[in-house]
Amino acid sequence: MKLASLKNGHPDGLLVVVSRDGRHAVAGTRIAPHLLDAVQRWDAVRRPLQDLSDALNAGRAAEAFAFDPTRCSAPLPRSPQWLDGSAFLNHGRLMEEAFNTPPIPHFDSVPVMYQGASDDFLGPHDDVPLPAEADGIDFEGEFGVVCGPAPMSASPAASLECVRLIVQLNDWSLRALGPHEMKTGFGFLQAKPSTAFAPVAVTPDELGQAWRDGRVHMRLHVQWNGERFGEPDGGEMNFSFGDLVAHAARTRRLTAGTIVGSGTVSNVSRGAGSACIAERRVIEKIDQGEIRTSFMRFGDRVRMQARFDDGSDGPFGAIEQQVVPAR
Amino acid sequence: MKLASLKNGHPDGLLVVVSRDGRHAVAGTRIAPHLLDAVQRWDAVRRPLQDLSDALNAGRAAEAFAFDPTRCSAPLPRSPQWLDGSAFLNHGRLMEEAFNTPPIPHFDSVPVMYQGASDDFLGPHDDVPLPAEADGIDFEGEFGVVCGPAPMSASPAASLECVRLIVQLNDWSLRALGPHEMKTGFGFLQAKPSTAFAPVAVTPDELGQAWRDGRVHMRLHVQWNGERFGEPDGGEMNFSFGDLVAHAARTRRLTAGTIVGSGTVSNVSRGAGSACIAERRVIEKIDQGEIRTSFMRFGDRVRMQARFDDGSDGPFGAIEQQVVPAR
Repeated sequence: MKLASLKNGHPDGLLVVVSRDGRHAVAGTRIAPHLLDAVQRWDAVRRPLQDLSDALNAGRAAEAFAFDPTRCSAPLPRSPQWLDGSAFLNHGRLMEEAFNTPPIPHFDSVPVMYQGASDDFLGPHDDVPLPAEADGIDFEGEFGVVCGPAPMSASPAASLECVRLIVQLNDWSLRALGPHEMKTGFGFLQAKPSTAFAPVAVTPDELGQAWRDGRVHMRLHVQWNGERFGEPDGGEMNFSFGDLVAHAARTRRLTAGTIVGSGTVSNVSRGAGSACIAERRVIEKIDQGEIRTSFMRFGDRVRMQARFDDGSDGPFGAIEQQVVPAR
Repeated sequence: MKLASLKNGHPDGLLVVVSRDGRHAVAGTRIAPHLLDAVQRWDAVRRPLQDLSDALNAGRAAEAFAFDPTRCSAPLPRSPQWLDGSAFLNHGRLMEEAFNTPPIPHFDSVPVMYQGASDDFLGPHDDVPLPAEADGIDFEGEFGVVCGPAPMSASPAASLECVRLIVQLNDWSLRALGPHEMKTGFGFLQAKPSTAFAPVAVTPDELGQAWRDGRVHMRLHVQWNGERFGEPDGGEMNFSFGDLVAHAARTRRLTAGTIVGSGTVSNVSRGAGSACIAERRVIEKIDQGEIRTSFMRFGDRVRMQARFDDGSDGPFGAIEQQVVPAR
């Protein structure tokens, strides 16, 4: 089942069911007004939404219309929590080198995670207003999961059962601000402006065998200003989403709609390229002795699209954004 | 104007206006169903709510009833963001010693702040379910502000203008988990379970001269299991709430209902006592050579109540909570 949210002036958007081929959609508002409501009442709405999806895919949805991802907000324009891990150890270790920060203790056995703003997400085609190029504007391509309710101290296995939807996202980052915030020990705040999401959130079954071991086994194809930047494989995640959700729930219950992210997708193989500029920069420094790539300028564009192993487009749709100066 | 939320089974609670003497209340639901809605439509609802408050205080509110703080949720049971500073440098410096963490760079010129969970706040009399005493259960008495919308990069002066309401809160902390999370650089997550709030949120005018320079000049009286623990003065805050809100808004716009906290109220004078156990412990170590106080046990109770300089109770009401094992 593929679900998206159209902008309608309401902070939670308008729920639509999207066809498997991504070409058509139908309003789900007779079942739930918006996706957050659907996630909160999942047991009651899952079957009616699936029936609507089946009808749409069979060409039997009377009120179907052409699906236009440029009219979409994030699938959840706001959510109760947004917690982002750093589950690709290759990325984390390169970042330690990039930021010249001390090694994170127990990095390969205990997930690290920060809490980000969840009240003001960006849609897949929204401009990204930021105050200054000097802040070191960077993208971070990731996968994430939307959870149902999880009790405090849920196990990794039980946490994985809580996964309702899978999403693809861009965790915008300001690299000039991150190292100081890490050194405070209080974590990222100014270094993490609004996060953006690909238009379509999907139930795990839509990924078939690409969803296994609590990981998204798909390559995230990233282009910066139209040029190939990388296509690292999400399957190389060192912690599963079950591990990450359990980490989040250790001392708090999670309310339905909580989003947990993978951290920047990153592969040990240099050939896969990167899903963020900071990683490419430190690789340049290591492999070539000097940093050659700058961070983003106003007017720059980034595109992110997950693909299956056979090269076909994934179901999330594309993130296509431009960085602009904040007014 | 004093506002509170009664538990009614809805995640946002039911808005009530509380009398100046704290003895009576009247439903504000004809004006706004819940406080978050009121904060989001503040310009439209402020005057009608003030009229209702005036009528209540004059004994002219027909449907007034006895105000029972034990029926209250947090004033905002959930909010778009919860951002907590550490604006009492005395506390921060003692914590560095307690946690054996390196000095925070620019600590006296740039606020530090973490983002906490804002989807599941505790009411003033709610039990505090936690997984284990071994996590080092501690309270943290603080003041905070509820903001209206703030644009990205708002100045401290403009940020202070965004303050809609002032609150008193207990930022529950798990001290055995904090140092590791600080060392990761990603900040507090498991170390910060649900935060609790005193029942009444107030407009700044309710504090009179005790609200000045963007600070709450009131002592926060803290009792642990009925014994005096401390009464540090909120006026000693090294950054103002304007500074803190501006820090939060540097690279993100704030949506209405965002809550920004002061961090643990803490005074240089040892005579004021403390508003958290970790601070008392490190003072014991410094002044007496050894730590004598343990963290909380299940069944322990904490009480927090702000008072004016003349000794009279502040308008927020009291937080009175018991720590219990999570089921």
